Amino acid sequence: MLIVMKSSATAHETDAVVDIIETIGLRPHPMPGATRTAIGITGNEGPVDGQRFENLPGVAEVIRVTKPYKLITLDLRPDKTIVRVGDATIGGSELAIIAGPCAIESRVQAFAVAEAVQRSGARFFRGGVWKPRTSPYTFQGLGDKAWEIMREIRDAFGLKIVTEAVDESHVDLIEKHGDVIQIGARNMQNFSLLKRAGRSKLPVLLKRGMAATLEEWLLAAEYIMAEGNYNVILCERGVRTFAQHTRNTLDLAAVPAIRRISHLPVIVDPSHGTGTAYMVTPLARAGIAVGADGLMIEVHNRPELALSDSAQALTPAEYAQLIEEVHAIRSTMAPMQKQVVSTN
Amino acid sequence: MLIVMKSSATAHETDAVVDIIETIGLRPHPMPGATRTAIGITGNEGPVDGQRFENLPGVAEVIRVTKPYKLITLDLRPDKTIVRVGDATIGGSELAIIAGPCAIESRVQAFAVAEAVQRSGARFFRGGVWKPRTSPYTFQGLGDKAWEIMREIRDAFGLKIVTEAVDESHVDLIEKHGDVIQIGARNMQNFSLLKRAGRSKLPVLLKRGMAATLEEWLLAAEYIMAEGNYNVILCERGVRTFAQHTRNTLDLAAVPAIRRISHLPVIVDPSHGTGTAYMVTPLARAGIAVGADGLMIEVHNRPELALSDSAQALTPAEYAQLIEEVHAIRSTMAPMQKQVVSTN
Amino acid sequence: MLIVMKSSATAHETDAVVDIIETIGLRPHPMPGATRTAIGITGNEGPVDGQRFENLPGVAEVIRVTKPYKLITLDLRPDKTIVRVGDATIGGSELAIIAGPCAIESRVQAFAVAEAVQRSGARFFRGGVWKPRTSPYTFQGLGDKAWEIMREIRDAFGLKIVTEAVDESHVDLIEKHGDVIQIGARNMQNFSLLKRAGRSKLPVLLKRGMAATLEEWLLAAEYIMAEGNYNVILCERGVRTFAQHTRNTLDLAAVPAIRRISHLPVIVDPSHGTGTAYMVTPLARAGIAVGADGLMIEVHNRPELALSDSAQALTPAEYAQLIEEVHAIRSTMAPMQKQVVSTN
Amino acid sequence: MLIVMKSSATAHETDAVVDIIETIGLRPHPMPGATRTAIGITGNEGPVDGQRFENLPGVAEVIRVTKPYKLITLDLRPDKTIVRVGDATIGGSELAIIAGPCAIESRVQAFAVAEAVQRSGARFFRGGVWKPRTSPYTFQGLGDKAWEIMREIRDAFGLKIVTEAVDESHVDLIEKHGDVIQIGARNMQNFSLLKRAGRSKLPVLLKRGMAATLEEWLLAAEYIMAEGNYNVILCERGVRTFAQHTRNTLDLAAVPAIRRISHLPVIVDPSHGTGTAYMVTPLARAGIAVGADGLMIEVHNRPELALSDSAQALTPAEYAQLIEEVHAIRSTMAPMQKQVVSTN
Repeated sequence: MLIVMKSSATAHETDAVVDIIETIGLRPHPMPGATRTAIGITGNEGPVDGQRFENLPGVAEVIRVTKPYKLITLDLRPDKTIVRVGDATIGGSELAIIAGPCAIESRVQAFAVAEAVQRSGARFFRGGVWKPRTSPYTFQGLGDKAWEIMREIRDAFGLKIVTEAVDESHVDLIEKHGDVIQIGARNMQNFSLLKRAGRSKLPVLLKRGMAATLEEWLLAAEYIMAEGNYNVILCERGVRTFAQHTRNTLDLAAVPAIRRISHLPVIVDPSHGTGTAYMVTPLARAGIAVGADGLMIEVHNRPELALSDSAQALTPAEYAQLIEEVHAIRSTMAPMQKQVVSTN
Repeated sequence: MLIVMKSSATAHETDAVVDIIETIGLRPHPMPGATRTAIGITGNEGPVDGQRFENLPGVAEVIRVTKPYKLITLDLRPDKTIVRVGDATIGGSELAIIAGPCAIESRVQAFAVAEAVQRSGARFFRGGVWKPRTSPYTFQGLGDKAWEIMREIRDAFGLKIVTEAVDESHVDLIEKHGDVIQIGARNMQNFSLLKRAGRSKLPVLLKRGMAATLEEWLLAAEYIMAEGNYNVILCERGVRTFAQHTRNTLDLAAVPAIRRISHLPVIVDPSHGTGTAYMVTPLARAGIAVGADGLMIEVHNRPELALSDSAQALTPAEYAQLIEEVHAIRSTMAPMQKQVVSTN
Repeated sequence: MLIVMKSSATAHETDAVVDIIETIGLRPHPMPGATRTAIGITGNEGPVDGQRFENLPGVAEVIRVTKPYKLITLDLRPDKTIVRVGDATIGGSELAIIAGPCAIESRVQAFAVAEAVQRSGARFFRGGVWKPRTSPYTFQGLGDKAWEIMREIRDAFGLKIVTEAVDESHVDLIEKHGDVIQIGARNMQNFSLLKRAGRSKLPVLLKRGMAATLEEWLLAAEYIMAEGNYNVILCERGVRTFAQHTRNTLDLAAVPAIRRISHLPVIVDPSHGTGTAYMVTPLARAGIAVGADGLMIEVHNRPELALSDSAQALTPAEYAQLIEEVHAIRSTMAPMQKQVVSTN
Repeated sequence: MLIVMKSSATAHETDAVVDIIETIGLRPHPMPGATRTAIGITGNEGPVDGQRFENLPGVAEVIRVTKPYKLITLDLRPDKTIVRVGDATIGGSELAIIAGPCAIESRVQAFAVAEAVQRSGARFFRGGVWKPRTSPYTFQGLGDKAWEIMREIRDAFGLKIVTEAVDESHVDLIEKHGDVIQIGARNMQNFSLLKRAGRSKLPVLLKRGMAATLEEWLLAAEYIMAEGNYNVILCERGVRTFAQHTRNTLDLAAVPAIRRISHLPVIVDPSHGTGTAYMVTPLARAGIAVGADGLMIEVHNRPELALSDSAQALTPAEYAQLIEEVHAIRSTMAPMQKQVVSTN
């Protein structure tokens, strides 16, 4: 941490700050400059809470230096994490594709989509059982009935089941019937839910919150990992900005930014990230080109009749075309990927 | 709802849209214009999900007209809601002041602050029992031990207790020992928690989410009310923007915007809304001047030692000065307030 | 400036950074910590361009400490600037009110509004001569014809004329016929225009850009002052955020934030800051309560017929009521204001 | 346009709105619904200014339907525009690469970079002559001296010269010595400059403003085209959001969004769009994968010594690698591109 004194700060005020630093057991490094003094602080194990210094007399600014996360960092684990879900992986050389409808609406719908998903070579089937909806008056998901359908799909198609947990009781059910626990954007800082997921043996797919900084998102992952569950997959799904031509603004630079800091795999969700079917394929291509480990895609056998998020669902044919295009792009990146692997 | 056809749309495409509208039981109103046709839709009870039309051939845009909320509206209830908490009120002629530390840290701290709060004439004491913190490595609140202190404060000072519920089990405890359930910004779309609060007999103070539009915020209130609990207080606490001179950007225009639509009371939290002690009093004044029904203020007997949010806590002396200033401003607005009351 | 090395940085990499710092004539202060080394830099006169260090081997992060501005700071000039425009002032004890129509549309319109402005006790008349409009197909201002009307108003009502300069040639004309040069939000970083205004003898009212950080805004003022013109008035007019219930989000915390750094006066424009007539008065009250030195308000004799910004213009009657309310609030702040004056 | 009446609106109020619509020569289409009446408007040639209706008694909301732009639309010109610059093109089958240093700093620097640019097969050389800098105290460009260097580069390497015009006099000089006029993000709504560029015979590269909506950006293009210059290239360079891990948030969804509306070519600038060298290549790949017609890339022979934007400049070797990777991705998209061409 660095404390910058005002140019008008007296020697007395600077000494008082130095005293407090020593009192709390840390080492102050005063650096007098041409116009003002800065005081570096070392000796801390983790981050120091600098807020306490902010309103002391003579202090102009407090600048945090140490990052607050530990477990997610490359410092801790220089090799990239490969999350294993049965015989499928996320974060390795395989491109991870998670596809399916926004919500499970009926057996017919779910099977039609699952068949398309399996045909494309994808290994993961997504489908909402309980839907967190902005309005209480819209379709909230089939709930328990959806589980029966999910179980059948797992058996019939050999797909891994990815479902969002909206509260802690849902985690129990996913542990029974599913393969990956999804934490949605609205619950990214639902710390009770994060801790519960952290006590599970299943991998956790953690979506970025709508207004989450990179640091907040990584600290949410840190909550899960601090409970002992190291199988976390990050999912960029767009953030809220002033732009109105999309539902969210997909922040693809988050992918290289995370790569530089963390060993966790990152996937991209261009369906929620744009909110509009005609944009999903171009942004899926971009997500792979930027270096993501996989994609999450909404597919519906009849998008115009979908009970939720109908505007962003692809038809099975559009989805098949998307998969072909992203594999073509991924293949051009193979040497690069190999290079990455070799450095790990 | 209004469906705007492309200028290149064929008569056949327009007819197809008209057919679908009729098929789902609604009435289409085609309006041919100079360059394109728009189709109005009536006959719907609530909002129609327009997404289904977005990707139909020939459709340029779908424009929603009907608002998705009901219970929060002045249409439903033209008189402003006055929330009663024992002998105190929020939303009436009394200025509602909710003050206290970010978190209950010790008996000594809590009592020192509560004494200052009571002395100022405020009726509500806030204090975190469980703290939702961005990092898992920072102080998470005293938990159950804090409740003993809270109970003593309620008895000793006659203050109403306002505490944040981070999960459903907390609501049970607040129902036992507290007076108002606070839903924090990070949980504004934790729909399980909203529904649980909606089944409580206690009033609910609902903070705006960090990236919540007005509509999303009001729909979160609608979730609570749809379960039968009509005593909802909205709290503006700043939103996330590009600006870096404050922790959040306090959006005071939300107050008149809500007044125009809703009967619910609105208060302002300048402590979280700015994140810095020296800004709290000016923004508290602004919050009252813009027409809020009250304020939520963080106070600490020794801010420099606070275990959380130390940079934004006021000292008891600063807080007392703030209360004096906001009452002076409020008193200039009395004739205006009366006018508002008389129209209700 | 502070350079934070990676925890994996070698001693060699740290030495290389230290060498470069010395090579460019500055003094390095290495501070080895538990997990990583930080290197403070002193000896610089102004800010050092830290970007050059960002991609050096072993560097994790470069943190700027010295602020890039000089002339706007309280360090340079501890007394608050009072801008004098003839016998009127902005920044002193007088509340500065600048009011008038968005654009001068006709002699009848301008005179009707000017009369209401004068009657309210305001000293400044605003009115667009050339209008920077988002679309090329909308009303662009009367141009030279508007100047004749402005001159007559200056003579007839004794009001000071405030007009926006859209390019350098406009500054010439304002110097001839007007009293204050306004730089609009869209031109806040039009550096050629800022420099031209900096060479004028007239005061400059500098609006904040739609996405300008505080620092960028203050540096735009610095451009004007660096040319020798110290009479700069800052005007907060709202910034662009995700919020859709207003045209812009008025960031009132900018007022105390600037006060803490700068001696320049700050006013608030609730008309552009909200974009909707019914919100202008509440936000004007809030602007005064937060501590602004004045207001800029759009008034039109017949808002429903205005050729631009019709939704945000107040009628003369609404405007008169607004002035009464803000004076009442300002009067409660008199002791505080006096205190501010006495410390200067 | 659509006017939505309040549910409490009287028949009289609705009739009054209908009357005004007819008075201004348009045709009203009242549509009574279950709870409220909406009134469609047709008969207008261009967009109607709906603001005038917003504050009329009984009006709840005014919804604009007609888009305000004309010349940029696919309605006007269904074939994609191919901008020709001598024997090079932007918007056709050729991938347009514009590369060079942020600013021309010296003959040695400019030649070293130009050589790398030519070697890569790129056809366009960018280099700042005058630099719009946030602070008045930083390097402002070489000005006229830079032109001599640019002329030599044009002759020696056969590269087309792309330079930013900061004011109207610069356009004169670019017309003399350069090939493409760049309008920077800070000047996107400098309407005087846009009009001057619109009267030029040179193509104009129009960068998106930092907080510009798609509509504002397209209307800025419309300003240029309305003066007769149809050779406009749009350049996405990131927008300002709350995210702090990049200098700007690159909004790649803008590319398909523009494709759907406009015939103008679009390129992507990942250098300004991220602000950090290590992110430029991944985002360049993503820009091509999303469907952009080209890239603008900052290259410097010695980035660590660059006088501006040093953190985001690539070395010649990094740049050469980038070009290879984007061509590989582009080649996978050839069938798709052909398909696009065939539909035009």
